[in-house]
Amino acid sequence: MSAVEHGGNLGEARRLFPQASGPWIDLSTGINPWPYPIPAIPAESWAALPSPDEARELEAVAAQCYGVPFDACVVATPGTQAAIQWLPHLFAAGTVSVLGPTYAEHARSWALGGHHVREARRFEDLAGSEIAVLVNPNNPDGNFFGREELLALAAEKYARGGALIIDEAFADVMPQVSLAAMAGTQGLVMLRSFGKFFGLAGIRLGFVLAEPSLTGKLRQAMGPWAVSGEAIAIGRAALADILWQNGTRTSLRTARQTLDEDLAKAGAVIGGTDLYRLLQTAHAPALFRQLGQAGIWVRRFSANPRWLRFGLPPHAEAEARLRAVLARYHKNGTRAM
Amino acid sequence: MSAVEHGGNLGEARRLFPQASGPWIDLSTGINPWPYPIPAIPAESWAALPSPDEARELEAVAAQCYGVPFDACVVATPGTQAAIQWLPHLFAAGTVSVLGPTYAEHARSWALGGHHVREARRFEDLAGSEIAVLVNPNNPDGNFFGREELLALAAEKYARGGALIIDEAFADVMPQVSLAAMAGTQGLVMLRSFGKFFGLAGIRLGFVLAEPSLTGKLRQAMGPWAVSGEAIAIGRAALADILWQNGTRTSLRTARQTLDEDLAKAGAVIGGTDLYRLLQTAHAPALFRQLGQAGIWVRRFSANPRWLRFGLPPHAEAEARLRAVLARYHKNGTRAM
Repeated sequence: MSAVEHGGNLGEARRLFPQASGPWIDLSTGINPWPYPIPAIPAESWAALPSPDEARELEAVAAQCYGVPFDACVVATPGTQAAIQWLPHLFAAGTVSVLGPTYAEHARSWALGGHHVREARRFEDLAGSEIAVLVNPNNPDGNFFGREELLALAAEKYARGGALIIDEAFADVMPQVSLAAMAGTQGLVMLRSFGKFFGLAGIRLGFVLAEPSLTGKLRQAMGPWAVSGEAIAIGRAALADILWQNGTRTSLRTARQTLDEDLAKAGAVIGGTDLYRLLQTAHAPALFRQLGQAGIWVRRFSANPRWLRFGLPPHAEAEARLRAVLARYHKNGTRAM
Repeated sequence: MSAVEHGGNLGEARRLFPQASGPWIDLSTGINPWPYPIPAIPAESWAALPSPDEARELEAVAAQCYGVPFDACVVATPGTQAAIQWLPHLFAAGTVSVLGPTYAEHARSWALGGHHVREARRFEDLAGSEIAVLVNPNNPDGNFFGREELLALAAEKYARGGALIIDEAFADVMPQVSLAAMAGTQGLVMLRSFGKFFGLAGIRLGFVLAEPSLTGKLRQAMGPWAVSGEAIAIGRAALADILWQNGTRTSLRTARQTLDEDLAKAGAVIGGTDLYRLLQTAHAPALFRQLGQAGIWVRRFSANPRWLRFGLPPHAEAEARLRAVLARYHKNGTRAM
C-alpha cells in the first residue's frame, strides 16, 4: 500500500525546492492560520494521567458546542486520524464505498483494516455496500449533501449491519451542513476535527459522534487516557468559547473572499470551504513550481493535475508574496480558462 | 469485559472518601512526582500537523537515550497504552500468555483483539504460546528477569510466528534490566513509557522498540501524526537531557529509601522500583481506608487484598501526612507481621 500524500509537510517542500526564497509560507493545509490562543495549562494536565472524569467533561463541552443532544454520543480521540485508523476495526469485514476524490486516508485505512474498498464517483454509487464514507463538506472541492439523503443512506447502511461515516472535518465553517444534532441515529457516524477550525492541529484532538454502542466500542478499542491532558484543557476552553468561534467564522469568511479574488487571476475557483479553496487551471503544474520557487507551498493532487488547493495566507506579507506570483502568472499570458 | 482498575483516578478517591481531609495526595501511580520542567513550546508545535521529519527526530533522540542501535527500531506512540491497544492487531490470532499479576491492560487488550489469553504465574509457564507478555521490571512487585532467558523466550516466540512483548515502563530507574540495546532482535518487542520517569504522564508519549518490519506495521496502523507536536517538542528536550536524567535517578532512589523506612512500620515492603513500593500486610484493607480518610490515595489490588502500592510522596507535607497515618496504624497495634 503506497503512502498517502498530505499537505503540511514542509520537509517535502524544502526537498523539492531547495533554492526557494524563504521563509516558507505553508498554504498546503486547510488549517486556520489564526489559532485559538493557548490558555494557561495547569501543571497537573501535563503531569498526571487525565482522569476519566476530565475526558467526560471535555466530551460534554464538545456535545454542547456541536449541538449533540446526548453526551454519550461523543467520544474524544487523539485527532480525527486516530478515529479513522480505529473505525475499520469496529465493523465486520465488508465492502466500503468511499465518495471520491477526497481525503485519501479513509480508503487507505479501511483497506488496511481488511475491508474491500471501492471508490464511488457519485453519491448514488454509495448504495449497496455495508459501509459508506464521505466528507461533508468535502475536501478539496467543498461539495456537500442534504440532511434527508444522508439520513436515508445511514438507514440503508444500518440495515446492512454497517454505517455511514461522515467526516465533518470542515463543518465548523459550515455548521448548517452538519448532522451533529442527529448524533445517536442508528448507522450514523460523524467525525469532527478540533485542530482545523481552532488552528491547533498539533495538539491532536478530534471527536466521533455516534450512537452510544459505537462510541463505547471505540472507547474500549482506544483504551484509557487516549487524549492528552493539555488537549483536554485547551479543548474545554476553546469549545466553550462561542464568542471566539463566531468571530473566527467571520474573519475566515472575509479572508476567503480576498483569496478568491486573488486566485481568480490564475484560474477558476471551483470550490472549497472558508478554510481552503480549490483552483482549477490547465497550468496547475507550472503554477505549483512557480509558487514553490517563491517559497509558497500549496497542495497538488496526483488524481487531478489541473487542481491546486490553497489555504488562507496567514498575514499581509504572505498575501503579498502569493499575489506577486499569481500576478506574474497572469501577465505571462499563461493563465488558464 | 469488565473495566480494569487503575491508579491515578482521584475522582474515584473522592467518591469513595467524600469526607476525606484534603487536599488529596495521589500516591496511587508510579509516576515521578518531580516532572521534567516543560520547556518553551514553539507556536508551530501547537498549530501545525507535526511533520514526519520531526517525529523521526524524536525517535532518533529516543534511540540514543535508550541505547537502541538503529533509529528504525523505534516508533513513537501517543502513550504506551496506545501501543498496547494496537499490538494485538499486528499479530495473527493466537494464544497469548501474560505473566501475572501485572498491569492488567495487557491481558484486556489482547483478549479484545481476538486472541486467547492465559495468565502465567511463573516465567516457565510462558512457553508454548505464540505471544508472551511480561513487564520488566514488573508492576507492582518489581521482579525482573535476565537477558539470556528473555532472549531465549523471544526466539521461541519468533519461531512460532509471534513475539515476546516486554513492557519496560519502569526500566528508566533500572536501566541495567532493559533489553533496549538488543532492539532489532527477531521476536523481541519492548515498550518504553515516557510519562512515568519524566513525570509527564499527561502528554501521552511512549515508544515501541522492535525490528523495523514491526515498527513499520505499527506506524501504518496508527497512521500519520500519531504523536502531538508538543509531545515531540518536550520529548526531544527531555530525552536528550542526560544530566537531568542522572540527577533524577539519584533523587528517586533517595526518596524511595525514605518511603521504605516509613512503610516498614506498617508491613513488609516486598518489592517495587524506585517509582513505587509494594507493601504487604494482612491489614491492607483497613490501612487503605485510614489513608483514604486522611486524603491519601494509594493503589489496592482486587487480585491480592494484602497488597497496597505506594508512589513517592511529592513533598514534605505529603510525607508527614503519610507518616502520621502509618504511625497511628502502628500504635493502634493493628500492624501486620
